[in-house]
Amino acid sequence: MTLADELRIALDGKWRHVREESRTRLAELDLAVDPDLDLEGARDHTFAQLKDLVQTGIPAAGFRESHGGLGDPGMAVTGIEMLAQFDLSLMVKAGVQWGLFGGAVENLGTDRHHALIPRIIDLDLVGCFAMTEIGHGSDVQSLETTATYDPQTQEFVVHSPTHSATKDYIGNAARHASIAAVFAQLVTRGESHGVHCFLVPIRDEHGEDMPGVTTADDHHKGGLRGVDNGRISFDEVRIPRENLLNRYGNVDENGAYSSPIDDTGKRFFTMLGTLIRGRISVGGSALAASEVALSIAGRYALKRRQFGPADGEETLLADYRMHQRRLLPLIARGYAYRFAQNQQVARMDKLQRSDNPDAQQQRELEGRAAGLKAILTWHASRSVQESRELCGGAGYLAENRISTLRGDIDVFTTFEGDNHVMLQLVAKELLTAYAHEVGGLDPLGMVKFVASTVTDVVRERTAASQLIQRLIDARPGGGDDDHDLLDRGTQLELFEDREQHVIETAARRLQRAAGADSAEAFRIFNNAQDHVIRCGRVHIDRIVLEAFTAGIARCEDEDAADLLREVATLYALSVIEDDLAWFMGHNRLSDARAKTVTSLLNDQLDKLRPHLLTLVEGFGVPEATLGAAFLLDPQPDA
Amino acid sequence: MTLADELRIALDGKWRHVREESRTRLAELDLAVDPDLDLEGARDHTFAQLKDLVQTGIPAAGFRESHGGLGDPGMAVTGIEMLAQFDLSLMVKAGVQWGLFGGAVENLGTDRHHALIPRIIDLDLVGCFAMTEIGHGSDVQSLETTATYDPQTQEFVVHSPTHSATKDYIGNAARHASIAAVFAQLVTRGESHGVHCFLVPIRDEHGEDMPGVTTADDHHKGGLRGVDNGRISFDEVRIPRENLLNRYGNVDENGAYSSPIDDTGKRFFTMLGTLIRGRISVGGSALAASEVALSIAGRYALKRRQFGPADGEETLLADYRMHQRRLLPLIARGYAYRFAQNQQVARMDKLQRSDNPDAQQQRELEGRAAGLKAILTWHASRSVQESRELCGGAGYLAENRISTLRGDIDVFTTFEGDNHVMLQLVAKELLTAYAHEVGGLDPLGMVKFVASTVTDVVRERTAASQLIQRLIDARPGGGDDDHDLLDRGTQLELFEDREQHVIETAARRLQRAAGADSAEAFRIFNNAQDHVIRCGRVHIDRIVLEAFTAGIARCEDEDAADLLREVATLYALSVIEDDLAWFMGHNRLSDARAKTVTSLLNDQLDKLRPHLLTLVEGFGVPEATLGAAFLLDPQPDA
Repeated sequence: MTLADELRIALDGKWRHVREESRTRLAELDLAVDPDLDLEGARDHTFAQLKDLVQTGIPAAGFRESHGGLGDPGMAVTGIEMLAQFDLSLMVKAGVQWGLFGGAVENLGTDRHHALIPRIIDLDLVGCFAMTEIGHGSDVQSLETTATYDPQTQEFVVHSPTHSATKDYIGNAARHASIAAVFAQLVTRGESHGVHCFLVPIRDEHGEDMPGVTTADDHHKGGLRGVDNGRISFDEVRIPRENLLNRYGNVDENGAYSSPIDDTGKRFFTMLGTLIRGRISVGGSALAASEVALSIAGRYALKRRQFGPADGEETLLADYRMHQRRLLPLIARGYAYRFAQNQQVARMDKLQRSDNPDAQQQRELEGRAAGLKAILTWHASRSVQESRELCGGAGYLAENRISTLRGDIDVFTTFEGDNHVMLQLVAKELLTAYAHEVGGLDPLGMVKFVASTVTDVVRERTAASQLIQRLIDARPGGGDDDHDLLDRGTQLELFEDREQHVIETAARRLQRAAGADSAEAFRIFNNAQDHVIRCGRVHIDRIVLEAFTAGIARCEDEDAADLLREVATLYALSVIEDDLAWFMGHNRLSDARAKTVTSLLNDQLDKLRPHLLTLVEGFGVPEATLGAAFLLDPQPDA
Repeated sequence: MTLADELRIALDGKWRHVREESRTRLAELDLAVDPDLDLEGARDHTFAQLKDLVQTGIPAAGFRESHGGLGDPGMAVTGIEMLAQFDLSLMVKAGVQWGLFGGAVENLGTDRHHALIPRIIDLDLVGCFAMTEIGHGSDVQSLETTATYDPQTQEFVVHSPTHSATKDYIGNAARHASIAAVFAQLVTRGESHGVHCFLVPIRDEHGEDMPGVTTADDHHKGGLRGVDNGRISFDEVRIPRENLLNRYGNVDENGAYSSPIDDTGKRFFTMLGTLIRGRISVGGSALAASEVALSIAGRYALKRRQFGPADGEETLLADYRMHQRRLLPLIARGYAYRFAQNQQVARMDKLQRSDNPDAQQQRELEGRAAGLKAILTWHASRSVQESRELCGGAGYLAENRISTLRGDIDVFTTFEGDNHVMLQLVAKELLTAYAHEVGGLDPLGMVKFVASTVTDVVRERTAASQLIQRLIDARPGGGDDDHDLLDRGTQLELFEDREQHVIETAARRLQRAAGADSAEAFRIFNNAQDHVIRCGRVHIDRIVLEAFTAGIARCEDEDAADLLREVATLYALSVIEDDLAWFMGHNRLSDARAKTVTSLLNDQLDKLRPHLLTLVEGFGVPEATLGAAFLLDPQPDA
């Protein structure tokens, strides 16, 4: 076992067997993208690859055994993440079919719908997930599409009342889907019961639009050429009453509505909560793509030389301070986020296997999933972009892969809703005592429920981890400025303390809206919106460092654990440096102490530089699957 | 005249007539990109458009009248910038042919080469600019290609000795160029005289490679599909002696080398200095692309609503604080950079029209050109990216244009060399007393020449502008913490003082390398590299604020000037906020004062929000040419 192997084992986490098998089997499928294919050719190609996946077991992983699946939610997410290491179009296509569409059928449907699942796994039934509309993306509760029950015929009438009600950016909708899981306002007996999901056939066996259905093609995009995104609008399309996915809301033959959850808002968020796996897969897949890009840039930095003394060999890019500053903190973040993502997947897996999942844990998972999705997808965009620039003009050529990743990864920051809205969702969970009951993310709904006291929010949760508390308690100095910034307990305490302060002060600002009229309440919320969103961000920073710390504690190889500790310190210093003005302005770091951050960080670069190749190998993207032509070039001196 | 018209006039600057004419004439040419074209189709399409440009006068603008041009360098750059508002592939293609290739012939050649210029203008002779090699991009002085004089035949033998000597990423090289301006080490009588430029025919009249020449296609890239980038390698290719562009270095029939500039390094940088227009065009064009993206995102923010009170109309995106925070500071930077770019173009124009340009001014222009290129192209990448995210999934569709801009603009950050190297070049100019004589950008060459004193570097230059000095002198408070951060003089003084301090301390660190051996000198340089690069960045921040201030002083409309002042303040606050930890840690802002920055910035957003449409219109990108389908959608309430 090399040190890189040990790192890879630590990063692979609980579903290591899935990763190892995927590395071999997916490499055999030859998933490289051919940029010469035209748009339809690229879509056909990806669809053909999708069929090849059926045999790998990944499609079946996420469904319950009683429905014909493997009942392994962790495997399902891990499998999707591994696809992302190979091709993001294929990852999205798989995610749409088995994760979003199949997930809606499994989680929102009942027995009569579950019978479809074997056909969904086998691609005998190809569907799409018709949630987003032109006019409503992040705000799903306000979708305009309606499904009105007609007791005469015992049908729902699905309708798009306006242009902005058109479903848009829907993967599989332009070509391959024959059926859609359509999110629409359920109306019966003249009353709306909020958003529900309906199965609506959209294409006949010849691929023609069904009567009343109009599909359109979103055509070219910034990337993801293998995914056929499209639009769907409905002109009074009739579907049988049974096509309502009725686990959380049912309409009987006579049009009477019933639901196990009375409150419309709570029902809606419960439904969305069952679909959490999609959000977790998006963040994890983006992270996987960033691992590919950083692997390419890291290897290139160890190969390419530039400038140097007239009388000697030119200097490796990896040996320049600026190059290290651009590359190594991103690699450290990659490690940190991988530990956090693995922890999240394990928690999700446990909850989803449970017959009676803990409501508090489910709520916490939803908050983290939203926040991690935002932070991981931004990290991926930034890492792929920086990797491109770190490879210069060569990074811009499709044959070196990064530019393809860059086009493909871009949309991940707005998948599942705008990342700022994702962080606002985390903040809502942190700031409101009754997040699940809060009707929506609209500002007024939110400020109304801000808890009167949030002072214990961080400490309560941190207490769950004895390890973290022990480290914090053992930190040197005990509260004065002499804390060693290289000490993990000190770092953990800084992150925790910052979170506590940011949340408390945000809550205090929002509490002023209590009793205010609508306009004034909006004004108060809006003035604080950047502060509110910051709550989500600093919260994620903390849980990531905690997950990293916990991950190191689980690492059994001492040398690997030592190296991981140095990486974690670089991560922590990098986060502190990014927010240094806050730590200074709030007297968490004296000016003198703050000035050490940059030099400590630079020292950390020196420590990690000799391990660059090892760190990159630890990401576990086999060199042969990187698909970057320039890594195969002869060495300059060859 | 509307307020927007007045803003546009202020931003259009001295070559307003060129901008106005381009807005009309280029719109008539229908330069929209068809994403359905395959790669060869896209290249043909762009090449056909290039031919349409000949009649506009833009191609002739940059060449001297005596060579058949218009002798209007400012028009040449402005014309290229306007192309960038329409299509970046066309801009690059035009820049390669008339700017880089034509510019090399004009500026490095003599009479016998200048005779070619009318054919270059007319596209009768299509060339490429073969500088970058696989192994050497930013470090042009170390190119490996050789041109060895053979007195027997009176020819140069052009040769690529290694794989890494292959010319790469060369625009026009894959298809359209028949001739290349090749940068190679000139060797005669066994001695190398450094990099010179040679005209080398690369294709015959049938488009076949000339004997000894091997071209290859770089094929797909992250964008710029209309540009045929390719590779060229030379296997002992013979060209007549006269094909040396011999203005700065000549070889006589017998192989004797002569040059008006003795020092090899100085000669090299003088030659590069004559090609400055390319660098200025790259920054200006990136800025133009960012204006398009921000115009689209700004208009979308005024159209799209999301979330809102259950009982009322949903809120416009533009009314959310977070949305304003993401969009308005980028718009303010766009304004700031446009004033700085216009100032730079005017200075370049003046120098290039002069028979005897001032050496100090030329040197300063070169430093600024490198620095502005870095800052403007990063700004463009960031603005296009943020605009994409501000438009959500819709921003990812090609039909809404931003995603195409995003793919195209990406490479600008490494055009002309990596942006960090560009900033290092500025730093070199600031830190060394004899920048022009310094052999190169290699660390040792640089530290050797660090001036023993740089203390007056900022003040000396600032003194050139009486207006700036007057504002600084008139600032309130006179040095204590009560400075009003909204006061321009205070802002200018903060920027100037920061630059002075950063440069001084960097110089002091580098001076330690005096007398050190190579390894130790490299270590000292490398430890300080991030600090050195920061010199370039803070220098550009200062000159941009000064240029903005000067631009406002020239604005004749009072209302427009008032609005521009608010925009300039947002720019200044945004720069200060980004570097707040520095201002605090170096006692330029007390903790209390620093805490006001964010709220002052937010107040500025409130002030500017009502002017969002006006500010966007001020960029002068006609709505009809934005090419974003969703701006034509019916309003949500329609």
